[in-house]
Amino acid sequence: MSNYTLAVIEGDGIGPEIVSSAIRILDKVAPGRFTYKPVIAGGKSIDIHGVPLTDEAIATCKNSDSVLLGAVGGPKWDTLPGHLRPERALLGIRKELGLFANIRPARLYPVLKGACPLRQETAEKGFDMVIVRELTGGCYYGERGRKQDADGNTIAFDTETYNQTEIDRIAKVAFELAAKRGKKLCSVDKANVLESSRLWRERVHEIAKSYPDIALSDMLVDNAAMQLVKNPAQFDVMVTANMFGDILSDEASQLTGSIGLLPSASLSNTRCGMYEPIHGSAPDIAGKGIANPIATIVSVAMMLRYAFTMDAEAERIEQAVDKTLQAGFRTGDILDNGTTPLGTKAMTDKILEQL
Amino acid sequence: MSNYTLAVIEGDGIGPEIVSSAIRILDKVAPGRFTYKPVIAGGKSIDIHGVPLTDEAIATCKNSDSVLLGAVGGPKWDTLPGHLRPERALLGIRKELGLFANIRPARLYPVLKGACPLRQETAEKGFDMVIVRELTGGCYYGERGRKQDADGNTIAFDTETYNQTEIDRIAKVAFELAAKRGKKLCSVDKANVLESSRLWRERVHEIAKSYPDIALSDMLVDNAAMQLVKNPAQFDVMVTANMFGDILSDEASQLTGSIGLLPSASLSNTRCGMYEPIHGSAPDIAGKGIANPIATIVSVAMMLRYAFTMDAEAERIEQAVDKTLQAGFRTGDILDNGTTPLGTKAMTDKILEQL
Ligand SMILES: CC(C)[C@H](C(=O)O)[C@@H](O)C(=O)O
Ligand SMILES: CC(C)[C@H](C(=O)O)[C@@H](O)C(=O)O
Repeated sequence: MSNYTLAVIEGDGIGPEIVSSAIRILDKVAPGRFTYKPVIAGGKSIDIHGVPLTDEAIATCKNSDSVLLGAVGGPKWDTLPGHLRPERALLGIRKELGLFANIRPARLYPVLKGACPLRQETAEKGFDMVIVRELTGGCYYGERGRKQDADGNTIAFDTETYNQTEIDRIAKVAFELAAKRGKKLCSVDKANVLESSRLWRERVHEIAKSYPDIALSDMLVDNAAMQLVKNPAQFDVMVTANMFGDILSDEASQLTGSIGLLPSASLSNTRCGMYEPIHGSAPDIAGKGIANPIATIVSVAMMLRYAFTMDAEAERIEQAVDKTLQAGFRTGDILDNGTTPLGTKAMTDKILEQL
Repeated sequence: MSNYTLAVIEGDGIGPEIVSSAIRILDKVAPGRFTYKPVIAGGKSIDIHGVPLTDEAIATCKNSDSVLLGAVGGPKWDTLPGHLRPERALLGIRKELGLFANIRPARLYPVLKGACPLRQETAEKGFDMVIVRELTGGCYYGERGRKQDADGNTIAFDTETYNQTEIDRIAKVAFELAAKRGKKLCSVDKANVLESSRLWRERVHEIAKSYPDIALSDMLVDNAAMQLVKNPAQFDVMVTANMFGDILSDEASQLTGSIGLLPSASLSNTRCGMYEPIHGSAPDIAGKGIANPIATIVSVAMMLRYAFTMDAEAERIEQAVDKTLQAGFRTGDILDNGTTPLGTKAMTDKILEQL
């Protein structure tokens, strides 16, 4: 049995606490299979090295079989200039590792439907979608800057740009995923306004020809923002550009009412991907031992499945989490009336017991 | 008393039905004050003139004191190339008339809280916000196109661009509006990624200095998409760029559960603005006499208030609509269990009775 190296970025805020929980789980389901290489990035890297991401950090990630990230950022670094902020670490890793496909499941955990912000009948019906967000293109990485016009008026600009290859590869990831799920793909764009969206739509339909079993639909982004609220159950897999995906995937996760449970994967064309909870570094509760470790734990399950095809181990983790929730154990963020919250470590212990 | 000219674009689908209702109301509250100049635009213009917007149509709008629009578009024109689609008429009018400020209220009508897609406690609490969307800048009007890279790979691009003047004037509109309402303004951007957002944020904070009574906050667009679902009551006035505003204002209107009631105004630096319901042309129910006329009727109220400072007349209309709803009258789109739907004309009659 091969041994894998995992670059581990604990990050800031609650990062170290939740990552340590996830590693306890990983060591239990796959004992001795992973060697951990700690990587410093984000706020902590700013404090130590003066920059959010060093070349050494990138190199360690690149030389690992995958990357596990807690969360980066916090108010301490919020007043720094843009290029020195903790989130630059995220953008840098995505680009340097070629992590072009961000996979964000948003499903309503039936035991937690009481936390769903939507009306009861929508929550009862439930939903289970995956948003595939393009992660290394669009206006996140296009040319940007400022200039002065003739009157001395400052102009700022950003460029949304996509090429054929970028669209084709993300479309394929989405079609493949839809093929393994409900066989429905909704491609979201703003083709009535943007040229990049028109190319997006053309290419997605071109790629669709190789996936005759998948029901493809197009939706405008403004309509998608409405449909998510109105009837989230209509979606199986959604694929969209970087900025639209940023907005819609956050909206979709909020709809579950339990962002403390949602994992994400950022994938490249090699095995090496990055896995992280979708929530942030929650500086307000950092160090208190009360953060919910589940999103990070199920991110590890995603990693086992996507990077190492250790599907059985992934399933064991997911089932242990489900059982723990079914047994009524809760951290503070997903508390029902009348239950007592567990801390990070106690919650992890409960999940370990189910393994 | 002055007489005003109103350019009237009935448009497509249910457009003619709802506009005719709105004009009956207008003639009742302001008899003899308005002369109507019919303008053909959108799908109907494509059918007659081969283009969605003619120079003559633009000229008539420009020479009027304001523009009332039903809705444009429909499946008939959906397969035409982009520059020939009905929605080009909208984009053209906005630019030609300099309608840089789109004002979109999203409030939960208490009598219709049962239609709110959010959980009961959120609906009970209610919400009442106005989204101020910049409407003639950003990636809607920036340079766009396609090129080929060295490998023959097609690249498409769009440019998000804002200058100081554009941001300053929309910020002022938003601050003025907040001053007349709850004195809270939330400016939404993506300043952690976009240069145009960083300029946006700088300028909004600069303009804020002239409005010391307004509580200004900044929010990232992905967070805003979440907060709208989580706690819409936190918002009073929101101001944002064209594309973000397109997405967030549609999300916010969906949260009311009754988009058939929501008006909008698109304002310039002159009195001449455009007023229209936020819903579309609903081709599926066109010509059936069942469309909800309320959004168009309250758009007329907005017009009276914003363009002609006829506040008393605006209020009369809004109160008549409220009373009609309170009396239990409903069109099919906002039907409660057990009520019988009224058609467009009958609903308009009921509102007229209240005037
Ligand atoms: C921190 C920020 C740059 C980032 C993004 O916009 O991609 C975050 O919102 C995310 O979704 O991971
Ligand atoms: C039809 C379309 C171009 C338009 C827009 O995106 O502005 C519409 O969605 C709107 O919000 O008025």
